[in-house]
Amino acid sequence: MGEENLLVAQGGGPTAVINQSLVGVILEARNHPSIDRIYGALHGVDGIVGEDFVDLTDIPADELEAIALTPAAALGSTRSKPDADFCERIFEVCQKRNIRHFLYIGGNDSSDTLRIVNEASERVDYDLRCIHVPKTIDNDLMVNDHTPGFGSAARFVASAFAGVNLDNAALPGVYIAVVMGRHAGFLTAASALAREVEGDGPHLIYVPERTFDTDQFIADVKTAHAKYGRCMVAVSEGIHDASGTPMLAQLAANAEYDAHGNVQLSGSGALADLLVKVVKENTGITRVRADTFGYLQRSFLGCASNVDQCEARGVGIKAVQAAVEGHDGTITIHRLSSVPYTHELRVSPLESVAGLTRVMPDEFIAPTNNDVTDAFLTYVRPLVGTDFPTATRLNAPKVD
Amino acid sequence: MGEENLLVAQGGGPTAVINQSLVGVILEARNHPSIDRIYGALHGVDGIVGEDFVDLTDIPADELEAIALTPAAALGSTRSKPDADFCERIFEVCQKRNIRHFLYIGGNDSSDTLRIVNEASERVDYDLRCIHVPKTIDNDLMVNDHTPGFGSAARFVASAFAGVNLDNAALPGVYIAVVMGRHAGFLTAASALAREVEGDGPHLIYVPERTFDTDQFIADVKTAHAKYGRCMVAVSEGIHDASGTPMLAQLAANAEYDAHGNVQLSGSGALADLLVKVVKENTGITRVRADTFGYLQRSFLGCASNVDQCEARGVGIKAVQAAVEGHDGTITIHRLSSVPYTHELRVSPLESVAGLTRVMPDEFIAPTNNDVTDAFLTYVRPLVGTDFPTATRLNAPKVD
Repeated sequence: MGEENLLVAQGGGPTAVINQSLVGVILEARNHPSIDRIYGALHGVDGIVGEDFVDLTDIPADELEAIALTPAAALGSTRSKPDADFCERIFEVCQKRNIRHFLYIGGNDSSDTLRIVNEASERVDYDLRCIHVPKTIDNDLMVNDHTPGFGSAARFVASAFAGVNLDNAALPGVYIAVVMGRHAGFLTAASALAREVEGDGPHLIYVPERTFDTDQFIADVKTAHAKYGRCMVAVSEGIHDASGTPMLAQLAANAEYDAHGNVQLSGSGALADLLVKVVKENTGITRVRADTFGYLQRSFLGCASNVDQCEARGVGIKAVQAAVEGHDGTITIHRLSSVPYTHELRVSPLESVAGLTRVMPDEFIAPTNNDVTDAFLTYVRPLVGTDFPTATRLNAPKVD
Repeated sequence: MGEENLLVAQGGGPTAVINQSLVGVILEARNHPSIDRIYGALHGVDGIVGEDFVDLTDIPADELEAIALTPAAALGSTRSKPDADFCERIFEVCQKRNIRHFLYIGGNDSSDTLRIVNEASERVDYDLRCIHVPKTIDNDLMVNDHTPGFGSAARFVASAFAGVNLDNAALPGVYIAVVMGRHAGFLTAASALAREVEGDGPHLIYVPERTFDTDQFIADVKTAHAKYGRCMVAVSEGIHDASGTPMLAQLAANAEYDAHGNVQLSGSGALADLLVKVVKENTGITRVRADTFGYLQRSFLGCASNVDQCEARGVGIKAVQAAVEGHDGTITIHRLSSVPYTHELRVSPLESVAGLTRVMPDEFIAPTNNDVTDAFLTYVRPLVGTDFPTATRLNAPKVD
């Protein structure tokens, strides 16, 4: 069928390791003589339909290795969520450019795009391999044990909490941090890795898998503050009341909504400030501070998990191998054991991931609904890297 | 005069390297046979007056080295600003415990405390050496070229901006980050180190040394957005209007004020959210996001400048040497050259630092009032460490 080209693109929110997957795709594709040119589309599906392509075939390996260590999406990204017509146009461009392998690095929206493009190719019997390369800091893809990008973001959240915990111990008060996560609380839960000794924060963790009850929250803060003389809280941006209404939407009369009708959660400190107000007005505690970790969670330069880096590279390599072997699907990560940590990669059906959202299983959330379990800690610990920093406390005798 | 004891305490906001100074003090004090016990007061001056002391004399060196690498104040800190009576009580405790060397690691308030305690000791001819060990992420101590703690916080801000710059290039829009700094803009200005290639953000930098004009800000954002297709902004939390009123105080009817009548700037996302609103309402740009870097700037575990670490250790060592040599004063850092970077430590009078605030010199701020100068970049570059990470961009040929 003449020369066969490969197309790769990146979609959705960038991560610390999404470029590892891109570099894995490029380097592995060069190993296969059947692949002629390696095209990269700029800004995801927008760049495909606009035929805004760069040629990645001949970039020197040392340059690629440096790009792999750089956070955010080197090809640019997009928030566009293609409908059927848009997918048809993607397919037409693939046909026109003799693209036979389409690899899309992204979350569950990206896998859904691939699913539709793949159906279009099958209808006209055009030989196109569609492989989804997983990526999301939210860790919310089905089938996967975890997703590339999550481990590095979890490392950021845990490092941030470990440092702020020491700061808060030095200058005690209530501290609240709002962590990314609309439906899945994995990233917020990772704050628990900051705990090393008795009394370390976070003392309370609230995830969107459970209803957020403001009265219970106030009672929890009072209890923890009485016990520790301070209180550190981690909450997901997506916490909501029993009706499913996000706490942020309750607050903000002028909340911003996206094309899908979702209230904009990131890029604002409003939820954190609301929770500060709630604590101040209901506990009598005066030193109450809050941070919203924001975009730093997914992009901070110099905070990547070495385990996450390797796995992100691995799914990129595996994706090319799967395509060359004639598969369509999504690359999924499966844990074999936690101690020592081992995993394997598989090719799973696009439909098993496309458009679906995984949330934290019940066994990861404490029955009190304000903490995580040891099972979660065992799960998350290997993902933040083999060199996670530790904090050392002063252990000196009291003077009489 | 019998056994001579040394007292060390930490005050004010913690930093990534304040424990380096503490460890420098402890290790150096052990070298001087004239010093008997090394006492640490818990939570700064509160721990002195409450005689809440630990004995630091015999802590193993390897434990100390691990504490030195740990952010925040290992002895605990305080926001108490002693008046004359409080200082008198500090002095009485020193007398009672036969403390002959009082070393206080902190900012300009701490040096003022030392100045008053020192005067009390001179009035009754009690031999007490008072040495201030500089520390502040704000970099706002007089006489000093820069202060321990600043370099690591600057590294955090620059790393954060470098990452978010790539994120914003992948998903373009307006991005605003609020950085700590009430009166001095050094830390906000350090965001400029994130720029590596033409078009990199931050595109606009606003510091409290200049009046913040909302109309000019809107015009600046429009101009940058038109030029780059996106716009990244760094602003100090302390930006204010021509009357000196903080922009945050203008916004917040229910702003929190501290004992000194200062509006609480940190621990809230309100200023960032105000600026987002201003941009949205006046530019027609829809994707506008903001982060407030918050406490992570001074405490993030795993983000310290190696230059800052060494200097913080150095001022602790020098402080003990100065005390043993019979000086009172503050240890100050003086730059000898920027390329290669060299500095020396001196003992300066407490009065030269006490209670005063240094701000950015005019030559560090661009005449446009919305950027820094090359002179500032030359100044700040060596302080963030010899291993500041770089970002690598994709450089691939376009496909026709």
